[in-house]
Amino acid sequence: MPLEFPFDYSRRNWAPSDYGNVEVCASMAKEAVAAKHVEARHKWVYRFEDGDATMRDLLGGKGANCAEMMRAGLPVPPGFVVTTEACNAFYEADEQFPTGMWEQALDALKELEGKTGKRLGDLANPLLVSVRSGAKFSMPGMMDTILNLGLNDETIEGVIAQTQNERFAWDSYRRFVQMYGNVVLEVDKDQFEHALEAIKAEAGIEEDVDLTVAHLQEAVRRFKGIVESETSRDFPTDPLDQLRGAIEAVFASWNNRRAIDYRNFHKIPHSLGTAVNVQAMVFGNMGSDSGTGVAFTRNPSTGEPELFGEFLEDAQGEDVVAGVRTPLPIAKLREVWPDIYTEFAEIAQRLETHYREMQDMEFTIEKGTLYMLQTRTGKRTASAAVRIAVDMFNEGLITKEEAISRVEPEQIDQLLHPRIDPEAEVSVIAKGLNASPGAAVGMAFFDPDEAEAVARQGHNVILVRPETSPDDVHGMIASQGILTARGGATSHAAVVARGLGKPCVAGCDEIRIDMEHERFTAGDVTIEKRDHISLNGSTGEVILGEVPLIQPEITAEMSELLRWADAIRRLEVWANADYPRDAALARSYGAQGIGLCRTEHMFFEEERLPIVQQMILASSSSERQAALDKLLPIQRDDFAGILRAMDGLPVVIRLLDPPLHEFLPDYAELLEEVVTLRATGEDPQRLAERQKLLENVASLREANPMLGLRGCRLGLEYPEIYEMQVRAILEAALTIKKEGGDPHPEIMIPLVSHANELGVLQEDLERVAKKVEEEQGDSVAYKFGTMIEVPRAALTASEIAEHAEFFSFGTNDLTQTTYGYSRDDAEGKFLLNYVENAILPENPFQVLDRDGVGRLVSIAVAEGRKTRSDLEVGICGEHGGDPSSIYFCHGVGLDYVSCSPYRVPVARIAAAQVTLEKQGAADR
Amino acid sequence: MPLEFPFDYSRRNWAPSDYGNVEVCASMAKEAVAAKHVEARHKWVYRFEDGDATMRDLLGGKGANCAEMMRAGLPVPPGFVVTTEACNAFYEADEQFPTGMWEQALDALKELEGKTGKRLGDLANPLLVSVRSGAKFSMPGMMDTILNLGLNDETIEGVIAQTQNERFAWDSYRRFVQMYGNVVLEVDKDQFEHALEAIKAEAGIEEDVDLTVAHLQEAVRRFKGIVESETSRDFPTDPLDQLRGAIEAVFASWNNRRAIDYRNFHKIPHSLGTAVNVQAMVFGNMGSDSGTGVAFTRNPSTGEPELFGEFLEDAQGEDVVAGVRTPLPIAKLREVWPDIYTEFAEIAQRLETHYREMQDMEFTIEKGTLYMLQTRTGKRTASAAVRIAVDMFNEGLITKEEAISRVEPEQIDQLLHPRIDPEAEVSVIAKGLNASPGAAVGMAFFDPDEAEAVARQGHNVILVRPETSPDDVHGMIASQGILTARGGATSHAAVVARGLGKPCVAGCDEIRIDMEHERFTAGDVTIEKRDHISLNGSTGEVILGEVPLIQPEITAEMSELLRWADAIRRLEVWANADYPRDAALARSYGAQGIGLCRTEHMFFEEERLPIVQQMILASSSSERQAALDKLLPIQRDDFAGILRAMDGLPVVIRLLDPPLHEFLPDYAELLEEVVTLRATGEDPQRLAERQKLLENVASLREANPMLGLRGCRLGLEYPEIYEMQVRAILEAALTIKKEGGDPHPEIMIPLVSHANELGVLQEDLERVAKKVEEEQGDSVAYKFGTMIEVPRAALTASEIAEHAEFFSFGTNDLTQTTYGYSRDDAEGKFLLNYVENAILPENPFQVLDRDGVGRLVSIAVAEGRKTRSDLEVGICGEHGGDPSSIYFCHGVGLDYVSCSPYRVPVARIAAAQVTLEKQGAADR
Repeated sequence: MPLEFPFDYSRRNWAPSDYGNVEVCASMAKEAVAAKHVEARHKWVYRFEDGDATMRDLLGGKGANCAEMMRAGLPVPPGFVVTTEACNAFYEADEQFPTGMWEQALDALKELEGKTGKRLGDLANPLLVSVRSGAKFSMPGMMDTILNLGLNDETIEGVIAQTQNERFAWDSYRRFVQMYGNVVLEVDKDQFEHALEAIKAEAGIEEDVDLTVAHLQEAVRRFKGIVESETSRDFPTDPLDQLRGAIEAVFASWNNRRAIDYRNFHKIPHSLGTAVNVQAMVFGNMGSDSGTGVAFTRNPSTGEPELFGEFLEDAQGEDVVAGVRTPLPIAKLREVWPDIYTEFAEIAQRLETHYREMQDMEFTIEKGTLYMLQTRTGKRTASAAVRIAVDMFNEGLITKEEAISRVEPEQIDQLLHPRIDPEAEVSVIAKGLNASPGAAVGMAFFDPDEAEAVARQGHNVILVRPETSPDDVHGMIASQGILTARGGATSHAAVVARGLGKPCVAGCDEIRIDMEHERFTAGDVTIEKRDHISLNGSTGEVILGEVPLIQPEITAEMSELLRWADAIRRLEVWANADYPRDAALARSYGAQGIGLCRTEHMFFEEERLPIVQQMILASSSSERQAALDKLLPIQRDDFAGILRAMDGLPVVIRLLDPPLHEFLPDYAELLEEVVTLRATGEDPQRLAERQKLLENVASLREANPMLGLRGCRLGLEYPEIYEMQVRAILEAALTIKKEGGDPHPEIMIPLVSHANELGVLQEDLERVAKKVEEEQGDSVAYKFGTMIEVPRAALTASEIAEHAEFFSFGTNDLTQTTYGYSRDDAEGKFLLNYVENAILPENPFQVLDRDGVGRLVSIAVAEGRKTRSDLEVGICGEHGGDPSSIYFCHGVGLDYVSCSPYRVPVARIAAAQVTLEKQGAADR
Repeated sequence: MPLEFPFDYSRRNWAPSDYGNVEVCASMAKEAVAAKHVEARHKWVYRFEDGDATMRDLLGGKGANCAEMMRAGLPVPPGFVVTTEACNAFYEADEQFPTGMWEQALDALKELEGKTGKRLGDLANPLLVSVRSGAKFSMPGMMDTILNLGLNDETIEGVIAQTQNERFAWDSYRRFVQMYGNVVLEVDKDQFEHALEAIKAEAGIEEDVDLTVAHLQEAVRRFKGIVESETSRDFPTDPLDQLRGAIEAVFASWNNRRAIDYRNFHKIPHSLGTAVNVQAMVFGNMGSDSGTGVAFTRNPSTGEPELFGEFLEDAQGEDVVAGVRTPLPIAKLREVWPDIYTEFAEIAQRLETHYREMQDMEFTIEKGTLYMLQTRTGKRTASAAVRIAVDMFNEGLITKEEAISRVEPEQIDQLLHPRIDPEAEVSVIAKGLNASPGAAVGMAFFDPDEAEAVARQGHNVILVRPETSPDDVHGMIASQGILTARGGATSHAAVVARGLGKPCVAGCDEIRIDMEHERFTAGDVTIEKRDHISLNGSTGEVILGEVPLIQPEITAEMSELLRWADAIRRLEVWANADYPRDAALARSYGAQGIGLCRTEHMFFEEERLPIVQQMILASSSSERQAALDKLLPIQRDDFAGILRAMDGLPVVIRLLDPPLHEFLPDYAELLEEVVTLRATGEDPQRLAERQKLLENVASLREANPMLGLRGCRLGLEYPEIYEMQVRAILEAALTIKKEGGDPHPEIMIPLVSHANELGVLQEDLERVAKKVEEEQGDSVAYKFGTMIEVPRAALTASEIAEHAEFFSFGTNDLTQTTYGYSRDDAEGKFLLNYVENAILPENPFQVLDRDGVGRLVSIAVAEGRKTRSDLEVGICGEHGGDPSSIYFCHGVGLDYVSCSPYRVPVARIAAAQVTLEKQGAADR
């Protein structure tokens, strides 16, 4: 196998956990290097001919691919690679080349001179080389490159003589001094730009192309002067000194600030090091028979199977990148140089077939000769990724399994939300928490009633609130997206928005909301009511004005790919859905069950809230029962709807979980109203009424509601609530059965921390279930189980499994209690700093923490199954939709993951990928 | 060994965990029974002669002790025992006697008749027997007893003939019908009382003693009539039917409601069953040469070595208990019947020597002959327990080890707090949480300033508040005790009160406080300012008026006992102390270090709070630093004081832990003020100022402060706070060293959940420490460690131990996060119901939960020590002072427990006891 399975770094954020761990990764890299090259420990330099694509660790991506192309007989300018090992040795030796390295480089240089028939520093026939960085993982623009190395006041004459192009020679020299001065000698590049601008101003010209030989000579002179005054040293003229300095500079660039930041952000181990590629220069700017370009083997935007790219005549690569001149589409190449085009198209085809992956290539045409400078796996959009993967399978290039592995799960997610056109220029005015993904555009409104009214008129609105409460839900439903100034990723706004599939930016404390005047400010921008804003719920960005959106699409290719994934994966994928419409959506996305139906969201709906409040504020058991009697038919309809939507599939219904005060008005607002009424003396009747309500709310207030009277504690305190809910579930299921349906309700008790809680509730609720069955003269198969969401439940899973037929890991709460973090208080506050400062490797609410939470999950699965071997085990926390967490869930033996409907396709792909990876690991 | 080590059930709440587990206990009991009596599986009945004191499981306490006394040749009325096994078999067989049991009972009865020369049902010489319950553990008054069984209209003639005392005979008959009717035939006993009252009214007499034979005959007649009309059956006349019914009734009484409740409360396994003792009656009411009494071998109140008790002439045991006639002190017996007294005193002495434990005896004198009816280990007060244990060692009766085991740790605790005179009659008006033990008496005050002022005048005051805040601490210090209407056992009031060693009743929601009029109501009682109330912080009782108190005393005996304990125990005992005075007190109680010095309590002190607030509200880093600079010398003095008090011993100082808003005014109060100011328009300047403060407080508010920005998260967010504290610690230690002292500071980081938090802080703080050492030109030995108080820290202890030289388990927080309980919200709310309804075996904040929290502690100890074998490990949560939790801490290998100064002696005893128990287990 000359080709390694392409490992695209951008996939790291969902790749196996080991790869996320810098230490492990470093040691893996080191071991791999050590194992492969133990016989040549002191071989620091490799000719392209000596390498191949498998040697990315040692030669970097660029070097390994040049070597591979050379092996394949493609026209690659000759060169050699100083290894990543040498880079690491350089750092270990306090920034000195390791013994033997420079000598090996000189030997390789000699061979290069032999191959090209040129010599570095030769006056008549000088060799010019490029010196480029090249790490294992692509870090575009992060490290340094020097072109045209070898030029000095003498060798330039040879170049002029060779090329018969004085201007080209001087322009190359000018570029070299500028680049070398900046990169190697660390002179501020603005100084060179200013000097060049001055020359242009003096000469009265505007474009670089109008610079004459004399101007360029003057530029070289002034550039050298700048270097000398800034560094107090002459510009190096000896080409070997230049080379030595350039290699040192590339090594040093591995640890420049932006490279370190980049690696921190992308979690690339700092210990990998960069290789240095020294390669004979070829020139695309040698006249009208020269040129340069970049191309993809397929369209990276749509995935269409066509050569895609652009080229420039008489230009160097950097001209393409710089965008000074407008390049021509690659198709034009066929018209300009049909032979070259044919040759290039063939090479492109060969490379794609060879790598079995879409390629991103750089090429140069020097005086009618095509040279390939680079090839690598091409980046692509989400929709292109899907199309390419499916096409390549259909073309027989890759297997179904490979096709699945080629698509990042997060790309699937992108395709399921409207998103901001990546081409659009946007003005970001603030950033908050990316609480619910997708993009939204609309007019800012601050009052939910008004937002709803305006939306009803057909306008798109965005609801802006300091924070949201159940009173705002109708406004949220009517809005395109929600923006709040306070609250974390489990705040009311965030949870409801995710449930609704609406984009939400939460806890955006950069904005100041003035509710009185209905406006907000972000920096020096003020947004008045009815002003347009856009939200990027995937990034947390608040954007000025209307940005263009791309609507979601489930293409035929995606459907196909998902079907393949279904055939492979072991984990089932269920969805969290509170309403029939969400359940239907989830089912259409392929959900195999509902893993979490939160009954409290049903309670929050506008017309029900008064009844719920009546139940809570009941001063007697009979008054409470009266309210519950009113809720029973409503809940029964809710459950019937969702069971009908999921006919034949399991539906896990969680009994009431949140603390009761969540259903009542906010304490502080109420207090404010009461105090105001008291101070003004107006409306004593309302005062008395609000005062009474305030007392009720106060009596339900808790110091730490997350750890208070909620979940099964509530169920044990007010047994009639759960009894009503279980009755509603059973009655609903029996109704469906009467209709000829096949309901599979599973009754889930939340927040259990001691087996007895479950035991007592089970006894009571089974009694209710039996009673309903007797009343109706029919029975229904239901399960009884529990959430595992506090550490003690996990630690005593063997006892809990005596009562529970299923476990569902509520990893949101489990993460909160395992860490002792309140998500509302942590996210957007200290947790942000923790992740930024690498105190935590990632946000544990997004990526399941293996060492703590994961260990508890493992314990609970193992010990729960010991008690009950057929225990059904799943996860319904938000991690259920996170690919790297799905990886963990597979490994620990869960039966299913449950996630939001929109994440179902993501999870289907991720679950298939982990199955493939584990099989691969087993096969090896 | 004929005598088992007396196992007093009242000690169960601190005894080995296994005993707390009903399942284990039941299976232990069953196994023991099975093992001992496998050869006689069907022996259901034992004569007293066949048993001994080791057979409590089978014969119950009463039966086993009667057997033992009989073996020892003491005058015990002959009898036999139907075993506990028979009782369990009875329940298993649906309340039928097991096969063979009744026949064995009849055989034993025959033998009894032979021994007494009387016969059950004999007309001339009838045998009368008592039928009494007798379980393994004493359950006083919970189960049933029938006396005088064997009487009917015919046998009474024999009794009259034998005794020549017609009135005695009819009175006995009357009592028997009444007792049998109530106990066996389940007729409401009030009916018999009413009938007797009616007879007395008709006869115009007031006292029972004035009832004539005719009256008594009428009573028997009417009683039988009641039985017949209530049960539709004749009163049984056949003495064998009577016996059969009585045995069934005693078995049935094992599962009567009050017995079940009692066992639930005392955690006695329901599976033990009761034995039934059938014993020949002897009569103390046969005239002036008869009598009955109870006595202790030593004074159960003081422990003095003297016979202590009382007796009644011409009376039955129930007369002593009923308190109708005033008994005489036992010393009088010597005057009345000197020979009997001498015989009894000798028997008492023999019994005590035999059992090697203070005895509680019942005796009856029938016509000049002494009979021993019962002996058992005597209950005693705390001070008696200590005195008796030490005396018995000095008398050579028991070993030091036994002496230590004879004292319940909780009894030591009682002796260290002023307590309510147990003789006093008190009027309890409300009950709250027993938040801090001890008793307090004083005038109720509602304003802390006024409380302080009045206390300064020499009055005892009790501070009554809805809840307390740092602003109230001066008032709390000045008070005898604190009463709050809200807040749990970790509320501010509770924590500060325990720290101060002041009694506190918290979360007493039965009282309604009217702050405006400075009064509170409890039921129909209103307490105005300056009214006297008393608090029992050990029970949570609020008592009307002034109750007499007993002051604490550390007697010479207790000191001696504690010294013996120190020589035995393996666990060190440290104390939690925030102030030098507490540290000194702890040291005087024998603390070997300070395991927790909470620096935030120092911040709360009145004169410092403004500086702390200045620090918190600082708008710039320099402003914050200025406040910290002011705090530095104060903190240095605090630490110097405590290090000086603990010279030569370790002092663990925890860096700032609580969320910052705790140091600021209450949000709701502030909001109320601002809204009022706004509505009234008065004092716009104050409005502006308070408004600004409100905004600051609001920005620090958290949804769940317990899980928010506190502990090391705060330290990482504001590094300058911890840096100041570490500087203060090092400067203080170096000052002490200069003074010639020997400081051992240990710096503790709170609330770590990831090793990196500790790693980052350690690096920064070690730097500060080194800097101080350099500045001072001297060094000091300090340790750096962490609290383990969230599950993740325990689960990743091996990583955390790489940075920490010591672990201290903060089991309060660890319990909160492991269960997902907020203590403030749980205690006094659902947790109360949980314990009452046996959903939880006990309050996990009082007794360490083995299965969840304990498992985490075990994991952390084992894995932490794997990384660092000399890791110092202790516990500083409140469990550190709980004997059963100390048992666990010993078992899991902790180095020390740390508790409040007042609990140090308790912990010393408990630590010695667990060592002894474990040695005993190892020896077996």
